[in-house]
Amino acid sequence: MEIKLAVAKTNKYATSESGDSVEVVERPNGGISVVMADGQSSGKGAKQISFLVVRKVISLLSEGVRDGAAARAASDYLFTERKGKVSATLNIVSIDMQTTTMVITRNNPVPVLIATPEEICALDDESNPIGLYRGTRPLISEVPLEPGLTVVVYTDGLVHAGSRSGESMDIKTFLQSLIEEENDEEEARPQAIADALLKHAIYLDHGRPVDDISVVVIQVSSQPTDSVRRMTVELPIN
Amino acid sequence: MEIKLAVAKTNKYATSESGDSVEVVERPNGGISVVMADGQSSGKGAKQISFLVVRKVISLLSEGVRDGAAARAASDYLFTERKGKVSATLNIVSIDMQTTTMVITRNNPVPVLIATPEEICALDDESNPIGLYRGTRPLISEVPLEPGLTVVVYTDGLVHAGSRSGESMDIKTFLQSLIEEENDEEEARPQAIADALLKHAIYLDHGRPVDDISVVVIQVSSQPTDSVRRMTVELPIN
Repeated sequence: MEIKLAVAKTNKYATSESGDSVEVVERPNGGISVVMADGQSSGKGAKQISFLVVRKVISLLSEGVRDGAAARAASDYLFTERKGKVSATLNIVSIDMQTTTMVITRNNPVPVLIATPEEICALDDESNPIGLYRGTRPLISEVPLEPGLTVVVYTDGLVHAGSRSGESMDIKTFLQSLIEEENDEEEARPQAIADALLKHAIYLDHGRPVDDISVVVIQVSSQPTDSVRRMTVELPIN
Repeated sequence: MEIKLAVAKTNKYATSESGDSVEVVERPNGGISVVMADGQSSGKGAKQISFLVVRKVISLLSEGVRDGAAARAASDYLFTERKGKVSATLNIVSIDMQTTTMVITRNNPVPVLIATPEEICALDDESNPIGLYRGTRPLISEVPLEPGLTVVVYTDGLVHAGSRSGESMDIKTFLQSLIEEENDEEEARPQAIADALLKHAIYLDHGRPVDDISVVVIQVSSQPTDSVRRMTVELPIN
């Protein structure tokens, strides 16, 4: 088995910085975690917030703190730092090699999609962003690591794409079509899924995203591996 | 322009964990840093050391600490934690958007290769690992971000591959041939370079790496970009 993870993100049109932050970190007891935060509003201020949240979470995770505790700590930290005046959404997805599960932690009204070879379901129970209140709790789901499992996490920029012209994307249906399309040949590659979702969102926004958009896709692949761990980053600069 | 980064790493044969750690982190003032450490010996103990070093460095970098200071701090920290009895090598390569340069920090006897469209040169001045002495200093080089620049950083597993059978790789010549080969069509992709170097090393070790091997390739590409930031991870699991 192999875990494949892909991230695609872009800025709100005409802003120099994305208010979303996404980082991947190795877990001290095996596995990896991806942490995504979306800071309130956009631009530099939002980036500071999301960066602060992600930094706090990855720092705790790399010390072996469990995901739920890290999310609570990030919430209390943001609440204390900004006196409850600023919010951020937070998602953590971990491949935990101690429990051989995927742990999905959500402090985000936006749902998380879980696709298995049989169906796609949405984790969409009510969940609040962090930073506004004391005692904010995350929602946590744990899913066994089984081949064919694909989890898609995104910020609200993907949900709201096209809303100005009244043609938002049905993300679940779009994901379904991507997975079915590729299944004819082989597993849909996470990067292809992330890119297709982002591309369609930018198209709906007529090439000028109305918000920062981040898409994270994590897949448990049954493909044989060569025991090589790989990572790539593509960073556009002006 | 676009920064492209690729990492390929594998474990010493018959060990469950690599003693090398590599992490990528976003810089608070723009850009990214990749941090690579190789802990003394191999297996779990080495992993703990390299993880501790990388964690310390990325935590400091994400607070805005400059690379050289982060390397010194990691050295003092390891020296204090392990009473000068354990060493680790440390490399940091940063894309610093404040200075528009690539900053290469080295506490590693193993050289770093810098390829431009004209030539390949090695940063091979004497450099010591961290953790053994007080006051260990890194070597720091700063290179302008120009299209066609490719930097290759690796742990000693790549250097020692094949040494048991007396047929080590001439890494510089091998890199040269990879770059020339691909130049006929287009820029050599960093992942292709990292994979080819690692693959050849494993071949020289007859499929059973005698040490952990990590290869990091960072390239400044002139290719036009779509303003999308991307990241992928492939993590083999058993």
